[in-house]
Order: sequence, then structure tokens, then C-alpha cells
Amino acid sequence: MSQQTFDVIAVGAGIAGLSAGMYCGRFNLKTLVIGEMPGGVITTTHLVENYPGIISITGMDMADVFMKHAQKFGAEIKYSRVGDIEKFEEGGKQFFHVRAAGEEFTAGAVIIATGTQHKQLGVKGEKEFSGKGVSYCALCDAAFFKGKTVCLVGGGDSSAIEALILAEQCRKVYMIVRKDVLRAEPINHKKVMESKNIEVKFLTEIAEIKGDGKVESVVFKSGEEMPMDGVFVAVGHVPVSVLAGKLGVELDPSGQIKINRNCETNVPGIYAAGDVTDTRFKQAITGAAEAVTASYSAYRYLQQMKK
Amino acid sequence: MSQQTFDVIAVGAGIAGLSAGMYCGRFNLKTLVIGEMPGGVITTTHLVENYPGIISITGMDMADVFMKHAQKFGAEIKYSRVGDIEKFEEGGKQFFHVRAAGEEFTAGAVIIATGTQHKQLGVKGEKEFSGKGVSYCALCDAAFFKGKTVCLVGGGDSSAIEALILAEQCRKVYMIVRKDVLRAEPINHKKVMESKNIEVKFLTEIAEIKGDGKVESVVFKSGEEMPMDGVFVAVGHVPVSVLAGKLGVELDPSGQIKINRNCETNVPGIYAAGDVTDTRFKQAITGAAEAVTASYSAYRYLQQMKK
Repeated sequence: MSQQTFDVIAVGAGIAGLSAGMYCGRFNLKTLVIGEMPGGVITTTHLVENYPGIISITGMDMADVFMKHAQKFGAEIKYSRVGDIEKFEEGGKQFFHVRAAGEEFTAGAVIIATGTQHKQLGVKGEKEFSGKGVSYCALCDAAFFKGKTVCLVGGGDSSAIEALILAEQCRKVYMIVRKDVLRAEPINHKKVMESKNIEVKFLTEIAEIKGDGKVESVVFKSGEEMPMDGVFVAVGHVPVSVLAGKLGVELDPSGQIKINRNCETNVPGIYAAGDVTDTRFKQAITGAAEAVTASYSAYRYLQQMKK
Repeated sequence: MSQQTFDVIAVGAGIAGLSAGMYCGRFNLKTLVIGEMPGGVITTTHLVENYPGIISITGMDMADVFMKHAQKFGAEIKYSRVGDIEKFEEGGKQFFHVRAAGEEFTAGAVIIATGTQHKQLGVKGEKEFSGKGVSYCALCDAAFFKGKTVCLVGGGDSSAIEALILAEQCRKVYMIVRKDVLRAEPINHKKVMESKNIEVKFLTEIAEIKGDGKVESVVFKSGEEMPMDGVFVAVGHVPVSVLAGKLGVELDPSGQIKINRNCETNVPGIYAAGDVTDTRFKQAITGAAEAVTASYSAYRYLQQMKK
């Protein structure tokens, strides 16, 4: 197992992790950004127009700019799933081991920017047909279902947006809503209701996804079975905070990492930024700012450790 | 006196105020951004390379992009000095009057993004010769002192940066430092010490600036008088929070507006963002993110007021 030593490791390669990489680089810290998904979830967004100072950009292009920005200031970027973060002490000083795909990295401070994961439905067939008709990203996969019949599970605003994306390509989109109401912004609600090929099924839940090698039908809790080419799941996100929790980092009841205004966690040397934190209103801009603040806090912490 | 009604008024037209304008516009709120200085202090920065996602841009161009971004989403921008903000009640609801240069504006919520002002030395002649040899912005005014002898007052990191900017144009730069040490980042400290035309005078304070129509000399507290063509003051900043204080907004001991993580102040309907707040590490990115968070809080507040 190879081993490399850094001042700071940002875990997560989305907007927050890359912003931390850029800023720690500017502080002249030896910095590694390591994450599974190059660019993070912003890459699944078609157009970003609400990041102050960037008037309009595709999610993919935005991720690309953030990678280049981090690299410009010397951060190293690796795309690999982090399997473990461990704390250890040596000579009265505290360090962290970060393990990923056969490599081990060491750093004095870690910035956790692991974001969120799509929530799963937890029904029979979901796992089996994942990538074979079951998808968690309409924007990524809509084109594979051109002219087909699909369903979109979820009743929130982002579910409505995903249904509208699907409606552009698919013959028919069933929107499967558990409650008797769509909790979407007025503009998206109206678009869904006016769409000719979206049909909303309220008070409906999927019990099972069936098929042979790929999705062929869904069975509702009512027992009704309906032929279906694809199932899109948009029922929310959960923070990716298991590794942080194992480290002793305090989480809130929904699993989000608790941070203060300096983006410090309860564990000295561990900082957090972006969608994984307990910040109420989460956007690319708030994640980037938290990453910058976390970098500053990490820098100050490392300066004090040197003394 | 003309009067106009808005949902939200952002006071301050820098990065934070303009970001608030953009975001409130996206929330479909009728929004006014009003401030004295188009673009704010970022316009006095030569190059900005630490705003995540914008790799390199001049301060002027950055301000321009933020203005365009705010206007794209329908915010109105006015360049005028706000003289007063007053709270009043009507029909059980609370509103705010904002007065500026003969105009009066009304809004349900106000985002204060008034930033900071340069600290003054408070010595005889400073006010009299302001703009006639006394300057608070090396980047803005260095070119007027090409080949001349100037002094730069201040011993912090930004003072060192300003001294280096001056040294590129001036024949001689005296750096006037009150303490016996320069509190600059190592890289800037080294550059100052190695510069051929910067001379640091430690344990030195100016008592008076003298001249006839323009600066001609400075008198130190020791009594010594030295011929001088220009005096650059870089002794820090103070928050512009007098209007907020009069409204009953809680300030910290240094006059900064106290906010929580939702960018709320203690006064319902009043939010704050950017350099004027009590955030420890202040950057364009943190100000922009605070403005977005303040916009979201203002939006929620206004939604509740409607009920």
C-alpha cells in the first residue's frame, strides 16, 4: 500500500471539495481532493444560473472550471471512493489516515465535502434493475427512454422538474405521488399540469419493480400492475456522513454534519462544507463559501499545530 | 418626494448587495439594490483569483458581471447614498422606509450589505488634503505619483501589498509602521524587505500632514518633518453600520452586524450580508453566499407575512 502525506485532504470532488482544494492551495498547503464522482452532483444539472457571478453555465462546464481552478493553485485531484478515515496520534500530534482503493493518504486536517446521495425507494427489484431501467437522474438518462413509457416517483419540486425533463423525450410519463398533492413551485406545478404527456397518479406507491434483465412493469401497492420501460426515482437525498460519524463527528438527527460558522465540526482538525452539512439553505454558492471558510479554519489549525 | 414600493431592498451595491439583488429577483420578488459605490470595494482590487469558479478576473470586470447578473433577474439598481432606514407599521404589518437623495422607497424586508469604510488616521491635514495627496487606495491612485516620493501608513498584510503596488510606480516609498514589527504574510514581508525603493520606518507615527493646496510634507510625532508628495493610508477598515444601529440592529463591539447562520439580525425583516457582518473570515465568496442565504430568509419571511 503506497502512502502519501498532505497538509489537507478534501474528501469529495464536487463544488465544495474542489473549492476547498483551490483555497487550501492558495494557502500554500499540500492539498489532495479525493472523491468518487468527478465534479459531484452539479454535473447532473443542465444549466446553473443562480451562482452569483456566473450568469449561465452548464453543470458539466461548471465542474470543469472548478477542477481547473483547484489545479491552478496546486491541488492534486484523485477520483476514487474513500473507504475509511481514521484518526491517530504521533508525538503528541493528531493526524488522519484516508484510505481509498488500495492507497493510503495522511493529512493533518480533513475537509469533509461528501455531499448527498439519492434516497432509494427500498422496494423489490429496485437494486436488481438499477441501471437497467431504474435511474436516479432524469437529466443523465432521459435520452435512453426516447419514445418510451416511464414513471417518475416523487412529489416535490425537483420531482416535478425531473418529470418535465422526461416529458421532453418520453412518450408518456406517469408521476407517482404518495400524497394527494404536488409540493412543487407554482411555475413547475402549472407546467406539469399542462403537459400533454405527464399523468399524475396521486395516493399511489410502488410495491415492486418487475422485469427480465430490464424493467418491464411496476406493481403498485393496490396490486395493480402496469407495463413500464423505466422507473425514475426522485424522492430526496440523504447526507453521505457514515465515515464522519465513525470518526466521532457529531451529526444531526437527519445525518447531516453539524458545523459552526467557521465550518468546524466537534472534532479538531475535521471541517465540513457543502450539502453534507446541517446548513438549512443549500446551494452551490453556500457550499463553495463553506469550503473557503473550512480551508481558512484548517489553515489556522495547522499553523497552531506547528507551534 | 417620489415613493416606490418593493418587496426587498438591498442596501449596498457591492458583491453582496448585487448577489442579493440577483437571488431575490429569482424568487420573483420586486427588488431594489441601492448603494453609493457601483460594484463596491472589489472594484479597487486589481485581480481576483480566489472566488471559486472564476479563475481570474479584474475587480472592475467582476463588479460588472454581478451587476448584469442582478439585472438579468429583474433587480433594479440605483447608485445613491442611503441616508436613513426607518421601521413603521401599517395594518399589523411591518415595513421599512429607505431614504436616499430625495427619493423614498418602501419594502417589506431589507438586506444590509453596506460593507466597510477605510479607517482614517485622524491627524491634522488628513481631511484637508484628501484627494490632494492623501489617498486610501494605492491601486486606484498609484499612477498619479509616478516618480514621486510617498509614504504608506500601516503595518498589516494589506499595507505591505499596497506598499509593493506603490513601489512599482513611485521613486521612493516610506512604510510608516507604528509597531516594531510588520504583521504581513511571509511572502509579502520578504518582498517588502527586498524592495530597493521601500524603506520601513518602525515605531513611527504621523502627527500632521502639511502642504499648500496639496501635500508637501509630513510631520512625525518625534517632531521630524519630511518632504512628501503623497500619503497613503492603509490602517484598516470599519463596518458601515450606523443606519443599522439606529434601526435597533444588534452590533458587536467593533460595530459589525451580528447575524446567525440564516443571515438574520435580531430585527425581523432585517438581514445582513458581506463585509458589514460579524463573520470572521470575509471574502467575496462568503459575502455572496451570505447574500443568497439572506435572500432566502427574506423570501420565507415575506411569504409568512402574506398569510
